[in-house]
Amino acid sequence: MSGGEFDLIRNYFRDATAQREDVVLGIGDDCALINVPAGKHLAVSMDTLVSGRHFIAEVDPVSLGHKALAVNLSDLAAMGAEPAWVTLSMTLPDADEVWQQWLASFMQGFSALAACHQVQLIGGDTTRGELTITVQAHGFLDRGEGLRRNAARDGDQIYVSGTLGDAGLALQMQQGRQIKVNDSAYLKHRLDQPTPRLALGRDLLKYATAAIDVSDGLVADLRHICTSSGVSAVVHVEKLPLSDAVSHYLNESGDWALPLAAGDDYELVFTVPLERQAAFEAVITQWDLRCTWIGSIEISEPSSQVKVVLPDGKIIDEVSGYDHFNA
Amino acid sequence: MSGGEFDLIRNYFRDATAQREDVVLGIGDDCALINVPAGKHLAVSMDTLVSGRHFIAEVDPVSLGHKALAVNLSDLAAMGAEPAWVTLSMTLPDADEVWQQWLASFMQGFSALAACHQVQLIGGDTTRGELTITVQAHGFLDRGEGLRRNAARDGDQIYVSGTLGDAGLALQMQQGRQIKVNDSAYLKHRLDQPTPRLALGRDLLKYATAAIDVSDGLVADLRHICTSSGVSAVVHVEKLPLSDAVSHYLNESGDWALPLAAGDDYELVFTVPLERQAAFEAVITQWDLRCTWIGSIEISEPSSQVKVVLPDGKIIDEVSGYDHFNA
Repeated sequence: MSGGEFDLIRNYFRDATAQREDVVLGIGDDCALINVPAGKHLAVSMDTLVSGRHFIAEVDPVSLGHKALAVNLSDLAAMGAEPAWVTLSMTLPDADEVWQQWLASFMQGFSALAACHQVQLIGGDTTRGELTITVQAHGFLDRGEGLRRNAARDGDQIYVSGTLGDAGLALQMQQGRQIKVNDSAYLKHRLDQPTPRLALGRDLLKYATAAIDVSDGLVADLRHICTSSGVSAVVHVEKLPLSDAVSHYLNESGDWALPLAAGDDYELVFTVPLERQAAFEAVITQWDLRCTWIGSIEISEPSSQVKVVLPDGKIIDEVSGYDHFNA
Repeated sequence: MSGGEFDLIRNYFRDATAQREDVVLGIGDDCALINVPAGKHLAVSMDTLVSGRHFIAEVDPVSLGHKALAVNLSDLAAMGAEPAWVTLSMTLPDADEVWQQWLASFMQGFSALAACHQVQLIGGDTTRGELTITVQAHGFLDRGEGLRRNAARDGDQIYVSGTLGDAGLALQMQQGRQIKVNDSAYLKHRLDQPTPRLALGRDLLKYATAAIDVSDGLVADLRHICTSSGVSAVVHVEKLPLSDAVSHYLNESGDWALPLAAGDDYELVFTVPLERQAAFEAVITQWDLRCTWIGSIEISEPSSQVKVVLPDGKIIDEVSGYDHFNA
């Protein structure tokens, strides 16, 4: 990180995030220096958001700052990791007053979410070009722990947190599609300011085998688990947890592809072995965040299929998810 | 890092870098998991290269792959850190065959340099958009160590590695300026495939106080040290180490701004306290990489000036370096 151009971000960000004791040297030198606790794995995840692809150019910058951090913290959540530090690279079209104001707003959303999770920004880069945001998040896991995609086994039960399709429906409305819903503000919030399920991820270390966050769509992301684990999945559409708004929309439209294929909800989908299911069902009754059973893992040929059971009992086995290069 | 789109890079990169024992989980899950040795700081540095700003669109992708990694390893070198892992986010205009071939070439240069330093690629992201490359490099330092920008003191002696102005002269030629030089291939190599001075950085932990890599230009980067340390610097132009090609060019043109202000050489400029200078001068006679005395640190008001002594004894105190937002 060369110093001169980073002053731009430093002005908006120094002291804006939590100051952590394990940060030896933060923003402003060639490198940041940090201390990882003994006995921990360091978990790292990097995600890039590009204007016009991952968000619209007119997006509220406060929300975008939240989301840029949230999607990375969501990857830590899907491993069960505890977040610690982040780096941020911003490519901005200009450094004039308009963009400085934009950046101040972006940082407001970014730092508010960082504060919620005691996350410190330790460095990064700023360059000029098409608006592009890259964040790398760093967190801890006890050695030997971690919810991996390859850990699902025959007979595991599949659960998902929260509700599905909210962000997808908001995206359709943003794209100009006329849809009658009761609570468009709720849907917009779900799209613009997703909640990384960090506490859930850590709690799941005791119960779950595999986990992934729903960024590309339930079926697409579940297929990653199936591919990595060499298994298949059966998902019951009628069991999918839906908000009132999406439920109402589905009743009118019959568009079941929405909660199956739409991305951006950043809920966790995960597998629980049969022998832990009773304990898990007992404990989730205490949790504020709903976790819903939606299906099970099986061994079938070819493996890595996700079979979807429709309300009429019909089974389909191909639902496309979001792909950044085909969308 | 969502899985689907990263397959693109994974195809070109899995197993292409060193496989390190401290990598618990590499490319392909929500996070990578790594183990940092006990008693070490983790050093991290993130740099972004944008097409048309940091490199020309027609650049040889093999060289660009080398350079994208080299500029990040250079930041580790400037702290004295030992490199370990990298993450890579690539934003590509397309995923068609032309770009896949381009990516394969990029990865060839990237992985060749990674192999030289036992560096493993552990994750990242791929997205579609304007060609933009973000790399984060991770390395180790013994706790309490590290060459910091704020550590220069009154009376320290200033040294620089290698030669200055080579990349800057190559850049001028690339931009179409007609310059007669004997060794344009050498200059082009210095611009396109800089060598991160990692071994030097580690050796300097015993001798130097402050260090920085010359990415924005000698004066601009030395000014970062001065600003952080609250000191000023005096640099003698006649002492600047020059290649034969740059020396020849300067004799013809008198363009002393080149080695003072041109960036991209990725040499290290660093400060050695007077009491260690004799030992340092003795040891560098053994080194393959030349280190040259160019001036000294002093206390003067205002601080953070870099004063340049010209061959005729005249002193100038303002030489501009490269700035990504003003260039």
